[in-house]
Amino acid sequence: MSEIKALNNLVDSFSKLPGVGIRTAERLAYAILDMKDEDAFAFSNAIVEVKNTIHPCSSCGLYATEEKCDICNDSSRDHKTFCVVANAKDALAIEKTKTFHGLYHVLGGLISMNRGIGPDDLQISRLLKRLKNEEAKEVILAFNPTIEGETTTLYLAKILEKENIQVTRLAYGLSMGTSLEYADGMTLEKAFEGRRKP
Amino acid sequence: MSEIKALNNLVDSFSKLPGVGIRTAERLAYAILDMKDEDAFAFSNAIVEVKNTIHPCSSCGLYATEEKCDICNDSSRDHKTFCVVANAKDALAIEKTKTFHGLYHVLGGLISMNRGIGPDDLQISRLLKRLKNEEAKEVILAFNPTIEGETTTLYLAKILEKENIQVTRLAYGLSMGTSLEYADGMTLEKAFEGRRKP
Repeated sequence: MSEIKALNNLVDSFSKLPGVGIRTAERLAYAILDMKDEDAFAFSNAIVEVKNTIHPCSSCGLYATEEKCDICNDSSRDHKTFCVVANAKDALAIEKTKTFHGLYHVLGGLISMNRGIGPDDLQISRLLKRLKNEEAKEVILAFNPTIEGETTTLYLAKILEKENIQVTRLAYGLSMGTSLEYADGMTLEKAFEGRRKP
Repeated sequence: MSEIKALNNLVDSFSKLPGVGIRTAERLAYAILDMKDEDAFAFSNAIVEVKNTIHPCSSCGLYATEEKCDICNDSSRDHKTFCVVANAKDALAIEKTKTFHGLYHVLGGLISMNRGIGPDDLQISRLLKRLKNEEAKEVILAFNPTIEGETTTLYLAKILEKENIQVTRLAYGLSMGTSLEYADGMTLEKAFEGRRKP
């Protein structure tokens, strides 16, 4: 039973997913066993399809099925404003809000001393080339509010100050719907720093 | 982006797994995108392999790759003692403890008024036939300590009392490593009821 090879392989595969431990991987593998055949085969095909049809957009690095992604190809969007993100998921999160109507640029990570990721490991030179070619007017740096995010923001801001481009970063402050009582000190500090007229 | 069909299909498939909501399904689908090709294709194959090679053991209902499972085929096990479980996963949990050395029988569920599952919906007649054919000596009823588990236990105990077979059920009581302080009332009650000499 527990020695059934096919089942072990599936548990292995599930446990390679982020946040999936061995217990959860087992539970999910059994769920596949209990699943209707057609659902399981559709699942299997969906994995192959995703890997075969989706690749990074040649210009911004977002997920694309053509050479360029739908956003880069969309002429109704503002092609002079760029939102720089660490990875494609962050762009998708922003895209869902329908707040931003420019183009994205995926760095592929953040500068991190701990993990030994330097500026050269990221798509920074491609960003600079792109900003020049497209005659960018504004760049919004949209990174996680972490040390890595801050470091990358400061690094890019420093580089871009020589260019004639407006550079901003996302606001830090209280999350909507939270209460002051439960906000952490760092967030409260940022909320004070960034206070504005109502 | 979010309109990429292959990605949507994969999110759909992930969200069919138990305990996986839409947010988690998205996270897992992106993880597949970021995965090495070979890992993703191995994952896809593992799903197909599991569905193609694993089916219920013709005798006990556990997972098997042959007609009968490894446990039913194992002549070193006690073929006169049967542990009746609701589903194969429960048997696997018991098997991991290496406590039980007899055979299993999977009912395929528990009697449940709420869900409209009656004795005829379960593998009970097959169990009775099997116990008779194998000249069983002991039957251990190993169901979850829930209303459904209790109902099924009482129903089977009633049927089996006519046969010359010893019928037991698993003990209820304090879980190892928990503290009295945090045990729920029902468990404490069962622990008192089932008290034994030390």
